[in-house]
Amino acid sequence: MSLYTYYRSQASFRVRIALNLKGLAREDSFLHLEKGDQFAAEYRAINPQMVVPTLIDGDVKLFQSLAILEYLDEKYPHPPLLPGDPAARAWVRGIALINAADSHPLIVPRVRHYLADMLKVSDEQRLAWIQHWLGAGLQAIESLLAEHPESGRFCHGDRPTVADICLVTQVTPAKTFDCPLDAYPRVIRVYDSCIAIPAFADAHPSKQPDTE
Amino acid sequence: MSLYTYYRSQASFRVRIALNLKGLAREDSFLHLEKGDQFAAEYRAINPQMVVPTLIDGDVKLFQSLAILEYLDEKYPHPPLLPGDPAARAWVRGIALINAADSHPLIVPRVRHYLADMLKVSDEQRLAWIQHWLGAGLQAIESLLAEHPESGRFCHGDRPTVADICLVTQVTPAKTFDCPLDAYPRVIRVYDSCIAIPAFADAHPSKQPDTE
Repeated sequence: MSLYTYYRSQASFRVRIALNLKGLAREDSFLHLEKGDQFAAEYRAINPQMVVPTLIDGDVKLFQSLAILEYLDEKYPHPPLLPGDPAARAWVRGIALINAADSHPLIVPRVRHYLADMLKVSDEQRLAWIQHWLGAGLQAIESLLAEHPESGRFCHGDRPTVADICLVTQVTPAKTFDCPLDAYPRVIRVYDSCIAIPAFADAHPSKQPDTE
Repeated sequence: MSLYTYYRSQASFRVRIALNLKGLAREDSFLHLEKGDQFAAEYRAINPQMVVPTLIDGDVKLFQSLAILEYLDEKYPHPPLLPGDPAARAWVRGIALINAADSHPLIVPRVRHYLADMLKVSDEQRLAWIQHWLGAGLQAIESLLAEHPESGRFCHGDRPTVADICLVTQVTPAKTFDCPLDAYPRVIRVYDSCIAIPAFADAHPSKQPDTE
């Protein structure tokens, strides 16, 4: 498999974790998002949204990290990234989407650039924006973990799911941007459980070949 | 089933369409997001993220619209909202996520309020922001439809999927906020096919009991 990736991209981080958990080897192609590699015509032909990741599996081109995680779980089912019961699957997917669909989209580089370049937002205001939206997601996930009897070491059950992958990609930028984390003990417990697993640790932005 | 909904919410709109397509009856509980009903303690106990929709199916509480769509498709499989092949499912989910995870999160009321109240962004700048992010998603979807041989009347194949549901919730706010649409003929063709179907039309924000 071939992965178009950027070390700091949380969406790429999700796919790296999933591939590692499944034991699937990959070749990386590195794009530097801050240098604008994603806008080159060659990459735009591969991914018209001009974002990472893109995963190529044989003749199948895959985009959007959560769609890629679902694909990997259907095509390479062991170990599973979702529980078996529909209600549990919905809960796990809901946690994942709080990160991937409500928090993360607000802090990606293209949005940070728009805030600075088009809206002339100061560095302090931009940091407050990032902390606000990451915090809102952390608070929601913490509350949902608190009311979910099957949560503990992981979000649901005794092994990592897509919820845990996305919890990690919620906490990682929160650490980078100095969000206060004391109010989220359940979230941090899950994060610590996950990051102790090599599949997660090896996928971390700080450990990639293109890490600066 | 019981749905906590707001007529203007695109995420609620997605769930209304899916329930209609599946022929599943519901009772609506209306929250007025502009009046802050979602922040009331009673609703916060139901949905700690303080967003709509929430769907109650028996003793199962469901949150996040895409997780709800997946649940409905697993629990009530006819008619299906996803194709059968893993690669096709990934493509359909990817289109849905361009709307639900990249465009829509940037234009929801809480973000528009933050722009106005915290960042003191003018009405003109705020409209430009909304049009910019909706346009970026429309452009990506148009390009992906153009390269996808199975697209035509619908995004994929000969019946609506979650991709079509989310295409409709991309175009609907684009119409509301006067985005230019001439550059997206494939997107508009699919939108027109969908909105001609009663399951879509009846779910539209303009046709709800709480519509103002």
